[in-house]
Amino acid sequence: MSKVFIEVSLSLDGIIAGPNVSAQVPMGESGHLLYDWHAGGPVDQAQAAAMFEGTGAVLIGRRTFEVAIDVWGEDGAFGRPCVVVTHRRAEPVLRTRTSFEFVTGGLLPALRRARDLAAGQDVCIMGGATLARQYLAAGLVDELRVHLIPVVLGQGSRFFDGFKDFLALTPSSASLTPKATHLRWQVNRPSDQSGAPRT
Amino acid sequence: MSKVFIEVSLSLDGIIAGPNVSAQVPMGESGHLLYDWHAGGPVDQAQAAAMFEGTGAVLIGRRTFEVAIDVWGEDGAFGRPCVVVTHRRAEPVLRTRTSFEFVTGGLLPALRRARDLAAGQDVCIMGGATLARQYLAAGLVDELRVHLIPVVLGQGSRFFDGFKDFLALTPSSASLTPKATHLRWQVNRPSDQSGAPRT
Repeated sequence: MSKVFIEVSLSLDGIIAGPNVSAQVPMGESGHLLYDWHAGGPVDQAQAAAMFEGTGAVLIGRRTFEVAIDVWGEDGAFGRPCVVVTHRRAEPVLRTRTSFEFVTGGLLPALRRARDLAAGQDVCIMGGATLARQYLAAGLVDELRVHLIPVVLGQGSRFFDGFKDFLALTPSSASLTPKATHLRWQVNRPSDQSGAPRT
Repeated sequence: MSKVFIEVSLSLDGIIAGPNVSAQVPMGESGHLLYDWHAGGPVDQAQAAAMFEGTGAVLIGRRTFEVAIDVWGEDGAFGRPCVVVTHRRAEPVLRTRTSFEFVTGGLLPALRRARDLAAGQDVCIMGGATLARQYLAAGLVDELRVHLIPVVLGQGSRFFDGFKDFLALTPSSASLTPKATHLRWQVNRPSDQSGAPRT
């Protein structure tokens, strides 16, 4: 059964990008520290290699596309089709291994298109945080994959800022390296959420 | 070598207490969900039992004392001396297994007194969040122990809210149960922090 998962590297204080994100500093100041683990030891490298295993398409926000497309280089980094969720139409952007297609009309049409492109494989929501939070709030996410980085950044954008809903999850795996703690949770189905106590 | 550690249960969105904390609802609305793991399976129970192993004294804030002292019951819950950090002097409060002593003058005198009472064992900083953050910002904490609970609360107080500093940590253990992911990090010594990149 194919699933929709969010893939995110967070500092211990829940920061997903440092302050002052721009095309020059796409992860924000100090934000690159959240991705050091890609160059970590064997377990980290296995995690990085497995990141997109079974993943047929990637969903990203328009701003993420704009600040990061140059960083992703000639091959477009993802090696699979990407759907860019946007309000402004644009022509597809093709890189050697990755296509970027722009879908307007909101979360659902974009997810539908990503599922089509994924052809039965999983769909990965990469960010930005706003897009990931919207899919999470809409109950459209099956799994949350967090790489918890052993730093407190103190400054930047918090992944959960502005997220006001209650969600019950089920932990599914944890793996510890000096560079990151790799964690996965299943997001409980709506039927398991309804009994969630509010007081 | 005895150490100073912070002990905290957090939701995935970093919340340490639900909204509307009061003596009637000391963990805030939904906040009790963060402590369900104490009644979890064998691994959780072992974690709960080990929580104060080797711990000689506990540091808490005045507000935590006031909202929770009734919940802690006849024996005072901790089974070891507690130091309450406060601006207002007060007489010690004695329970059958726990003493609560009020120390004014700030973080350092309170920690010094807790170390004396701990007699070579570890000192645990239990909260509230403000107190724990102050000790962390002051560079007085050796270890952070987080029980990451598989819920997103969406509402309440974030442990790291208002914490603006950079801290480098070293992961030391991770243990996964259906109720919680038990994580520990060593806080790197100041000499390991100075080289922390800001950009």
